[in-house]
Amino acid sequence: MGGDHAAATLLGPGDDAAVVAAPDGKTVVSIDTQVQDQDFRLEWPNGYRTTGFDVGWKAAAQNLSDINAMGGTATSLVVSLTLPPETPVAWVEDLADGLTAGITELGAAKCSVAGGDLGRGREISVTVAVLGTLGGSHAVLRSGAQPGDVLAIAGTAGHAAAGLAVLESAVNVDALQPEQRIFLDLQCRPRPPLAAGPAARAAGATAMLDISDGLLRDGLRLAAASAVGIDLDPAPLRALAEVLRPASELLGTEPMAWVLGGGEDHGLLATFPLNVQLPPGFTAIGSIQALGSNESPSVTIAGRSADTGGWDHFAH
Amino acid sequence: MGGDHAAATLLGPGDDAAVVAAPDGKTVVSIDTQVQDQDFRLEWPNGYRTTGFDVGWKAAAQNLSDINAMGGTATSLVVSLTLPPETPVAWVEDLADGLTAGITELGAAKCSVAGGDLGRGREISVTVAVLGTLGGSHAVLRSGAQPGDVLAIAGTAGHAAAGLAVLESAVNVDALQPEQRIFLDLQCRPRPPLAAGPAARAAGATAMLDISDGLLRDGLRLAAASAVGIDLDPAPLRALAEVLRPASELLGTEPMAWVLGGGEDHGLLATFPLNVQLPPGFTAIGSIQALGSNESPSVTIAGRSADTGGWDHFAH
Repeated sequence: MGGDHAAATLLGPGDDAAVVAAPDGKTVVSIDTQVQDQDFRLEWPNGYRTTGFDVGWKAAAQNLSDINAMGGTATSLVVSLTLPPETPVAWVEDLADGLTAGITELGAAKCSVAGGDLGRGREISVTVAVLGTLGGSHAVLRSGAQPGDVLAIAGTAGHAAAGLAVLESAVNVDALQPEQRIFLDLQCRPRPPLAAGPAARAAGATAMLDISDGLLRDGLRLAAASAVGIDLDPAPLRALAEVLRPASELLGTEPMAWVLGGGEDHGLLATFPLNVQLPPGFTAIGSIQALGSNESPSVTIAGRSADTGGWDHFAH
Repeated sequence: MGGDHAAATLLGPGDDAAVVAAPDGKTVVSIDTQVQDQDFRLEWPNGYRTTGFDVGWKAAAQNLSDINAMGGTATSLVVSLTLPPETPVAWVEDLADGLTAGITELGAAKCSVAGGDLGRGREISVTVAVLGTLGGSHAVLRSGAQPGDVLAIAGTAGHAAAGLAVLESAVNVDALQPEQRIFLDLQCRPRPPLAAGPAARAAGATAMLDISDGLLRDGLRLAAASAVGIDLDPAPLRALAEVLRPASELLGTEPMAWVLGGGEDHGLLATFPLNVQLPPGFTAIGSIQALGSNESPSVTIAGRSADTGGWDHFAH
């Protein structure tokens, strides 16, 4: 192994297993599946057809994000494809292209596809397991947030949810303006901020996870694992929502629901001690609170309950 | 990390990824999927119902075998389950029990389930990615066989194929004698010889792979990767077939087809220099031949073509 950008795959496809470098004696690992009609539709109500490239890219992005969320960098992917017999070969080749493009364009320079498995089924299913390295450092867990810490976000919030709403709308894909289309593109090909995870670890992040199910739900997971409360600031949430206006105005909806409930952007949610300068790409959006003796971990907005609809008060 | 049997999982489920020890700086990795109605049926023609335990065990066994085939030992599994909404909870719990029982009873003492993912689909699909270690040594590839090497097998051959034939027969599962039932059991819960892979590596095996698609097909893969010919001995093949008599007599078939064409026992096929004493569990079944300038890699039996039916001559 040479510098930071040397390929980590020591033995690639062709044998019963691959061999991947783990120079510091630890391997980070995660696994994630996308299933047709559950995680994506081949054709959407607005006429968009999911490409193999989209599915490959998204599989890469989701998995790379899991390593990012630990503060690590990805070293390899192994891929298992289940395909109905009628799946066009070109669609599968496009999926392979999307996987490698996702790896490259998202900046996972050490990473490559080390191996795979192919089988038949009634529906398309793509499972990727990702390996990564912490580069001699520690993993950032969900459980380390401390009262007084700053809560910060990296990457986008709600873009993929806005894109999902556009895909499920009656607004034909060909009629979209570029500033509307971007949300659809991010739903189909998310762009997790891969530099941000290791940067957060290096800066002393106390806890971290990726936002795959929405700010409120993933925030509550971090709060529960750390046995703390999270209080969100309305102002940065409003700024995050403002960015979604081109989609919300198109559909006549309120963007704050996407900011708080939308996953799949695969942004990072991390906590930092108050005296730490946030690394590039992170924006403070709240703070960590101690729990009283009878309190459960929770997520509030300016001290008010953030359960369904509870954020309406702060939306405007 | 203590001795050889210390658990390798440093950080288990609960975060975005797990962390697994790789003390020698390398991780072996493979991935494998089982899909309902492709790799198993929930109910078979002979009345047997596949249990969650069976599917969990088989998922563990298949994946552990891939690490074994490289000469490694497994350190962790990550599991992605896709389940139809109607799947009984008890069936899924049984699957988890089968996974851990497979790991333990097959002897993968360092290994545990480090993480997972759960989603919905129209059919049950179980993907496992397995990590392993070479313990500071090298991986045994498919490509290292040399002319003059001995070809040897470890584990059973054709048992799982015989079991599949029993499952697909009209002979009711409840009517099976124990010596017939064993084949069904090995189809549902295969027992790859996990000690044999590292032993073969230590003994100086020049090439190795696991037999997942049958002796002839996997033999041809080894031959092709090594650019050699394989010649099988009829005598040890007949001995392997003889063991299958309780199933072949039950069904009125010829057992040699199972020996040569049956996969899923996950035995090992390995090559050793002529002067090496075969490690425990291995039986010589053939030899490696140099290819003439116009010859393609092939598998023969006593010099005769081993293509479909070509082995009939040697069956009795």
